[in-house]
Amino acid sequence: MYRPQIKVLDCTIRDGGLINNHKFDHRFVRAVYKAVSSAGVDYIELGYRNSKRLFSQEEYGPWKFCGDEDIKKIIDGIESNTKISVMVDVGRVDLDDVKPASESPVDMIRVATYVKDIDKAIFLSNHFFDKGYETTINIMAISRDQGPELDEALHQIEKESKAGIIYIVDSFGALYQETVEHLVKLFKSIIKTKEVGFHGHNHQQLAFGNTIEAIIHDANYLDGTVYGIGRAAGNCPLELLIGFLKNPKFDIRPILDLISDEFIPLRRKIEWGYIIPYAISGMMNEHPRQAMALRNSDRKENYREFYESLIEDVD
Amino acid sequence: MYRPQIKVLDCTIRDGGLINNHKFDHRFVRAVYKAVSSAGVDYIELGYRNSKRLFSQEEYGPWKFCGDEDIKKIIDGIESNTKISVMVDVGRVDLDDVKPASESPVDMIRVATYVKDIDKAIFLSNHFFDKGYETTINIMAISRDQGPELDEALHQIEKESKAGIIYIVDSFGALYQETVEHLVKLFKSIIKTKEVGFHGHNHQQLAFGNTIEAIIHDANYLDGTVYGIGRAAGNCPLELLIGFLKNPKFDIRPILDLISDEFIPLRRKIEWGYIIPYAISGMMNEHPRQAMALRNSDRKENYREFYESLIEDVD
Repeated sequence: MYRPQIKVLDCTIRDGGLINNHKFDHRFVRAVYKAVSSAGVDYIELGYRNSKRLFSQEEYGPWKFCGDEDIKKIIDGIESNTKISVMVDVGRVDLDDVKPASESPVDMIRVATYVKDIDKAIFLSNHFFDKGYETTINIMAISRDQGPELDEALHQIEKESKAGIIYIVDSFGALYQETVEHLVKLFKSIIKTKEVGFHGHNHQQLAFGNTIEAIIHDANYLDGTVYGIGRAAGNCPLELLIGFLKNPKFDIRPILDLISDEFIPLRRKIEWGYIIPYAISGMMNEHPRQAMALRNSDRKENYREFYESLIEDVD
Repeated sequence: MYRPQIKVLDCTIRDGGLINNHKFDHRFVRAVYKAVSSAGVDYIELGYRNSKRLFSQEEYGPWKFCGDEDIKKIIDGIESNTKISVMVDVGRVDLDDVKPASESPVDMIRVATYVKDIDKAIFLSNHFFDKGYETTINIMAISRDQGPELDEALHQIEKESKAGIIYIVDSFGALYQETVEHLVKLFKSIIKTKEVGFHGHNHQQLAFGNTIEAIIHDANYLDGTVYGIGRAAGNCPLELLIGFLKNPKFDIRPILDLISDEFIPLRRKIEWGYIIPYAISGMMNEHPRQAMALRNSDRKENYREFYESLIEDVD
């Protein structure tokens, strides 16, 4: 038994880009796009549409900017029903960089926001909607923002936003399944005219379990990444999600090949996955920033010291 | 808020021993015992009490047999409130090898069984109970055995067994949280006079999430292993479980040190954790035997071929 409403979004290149400054080469991105398409995944997100005035193209690779021309080079000649998504951060996009949807290979724009910036996110998502895109609002760091401000933001979204999907984003990998249940039910109780999505982080090995929990409570838009790649501990592994979902449109085999051929070698070069400082960050409901700094230092396995430093911070 | 009834059992040496033929040296086992004791963990399981007539002491290390004298060498001089457990497999134990509890350092004997061997397991656990041990019955491979035979076995356990705790063992890492909820509720509906335990495997990164699910539905005995070590993908990471539980008796720090000092180096020598063939075994509800064989071959990253071979087997 499956729910035909369920849509899976692969954000391998977008969230994976957070660990290599978005410097995946075109060959690699085409391999991912091809496999994700063959697997029957509904959407693929290739990166951020950031302003080139704000970020250096020396420092960052193409998927920090996701120009239409770069995207065209990826999809050219590959048969696919997978829609293209890009992400936009509040305050980092030039609206002039976004052409009308009819002139762009992009199908969906997802607006990432904190609760405090919800007005800006609604403005942006409405702007993109009016340009013809499917739009979502992704509420980040939600494990820190569960008070009355969240309720208010949700009411405002329901009333003012044209976005079709509102995402719960567990940026810190801090949610347990009880909290996921609570949040999905809260979202659905206020946002009655839109779909709810879930984007997990895997700091405590709960991204997949929490995604299942979100599915149980009727979230229909689900993010995953190949082999769980993504910032810090990474995300919900796409292969596990596809293995779990019963929708006959999905085929796990192309993803298995992609892991064998590309991700096993890649994992030897860049780091993500179950790593103790990220697990500690998740337990403490902290941004993984400090843990990432630790992993780039010569004290990378000094877990107790790191743990104590986070306890001190809370004071 | 915490449940004082919750007990945590560390089976690092026992389940970890399944990947190195139980050949942990005494220094290492003492380090684990010391850290687990300092962390306030309730039980530590050091291995199997197997018959030396059935298994070779050349081929297997001491924790395949768990002689009282070996155990004494581990615990000697280390301050601890942690109780000692050993596991017994139906059909592999000499009853003469088990002295009365009053003459042994062992506190608990856990009897591992398939549903079909439940009569033998009840006999064994009653025998050990009468010798003065705390006893459990651990029902293995339960994802394959959920029919009326399981119900019958549970009724029989409730009626005939003196064991205090009955464990759900997800040997294949095949359970999702819905199944865990169902099983814990089933166990508790039939076994009204005993506690329910949960032992997860991590093939699909669900061991910790499933353990939380078991806690939610009132399982009080929970297994974990340091850094998730254990057969194939391993088990529920003890450090995550301790990070989650609110019981003030637990301290995560000694476990963090143990991972830094011992498990990071060990993981470079022996393999466990999130590895695609184990994930596939879990999805397919298969014993990881074939996946383990694959990982010891030169085709270890041939995931698609392995996936197809399991589909064929099901025919």
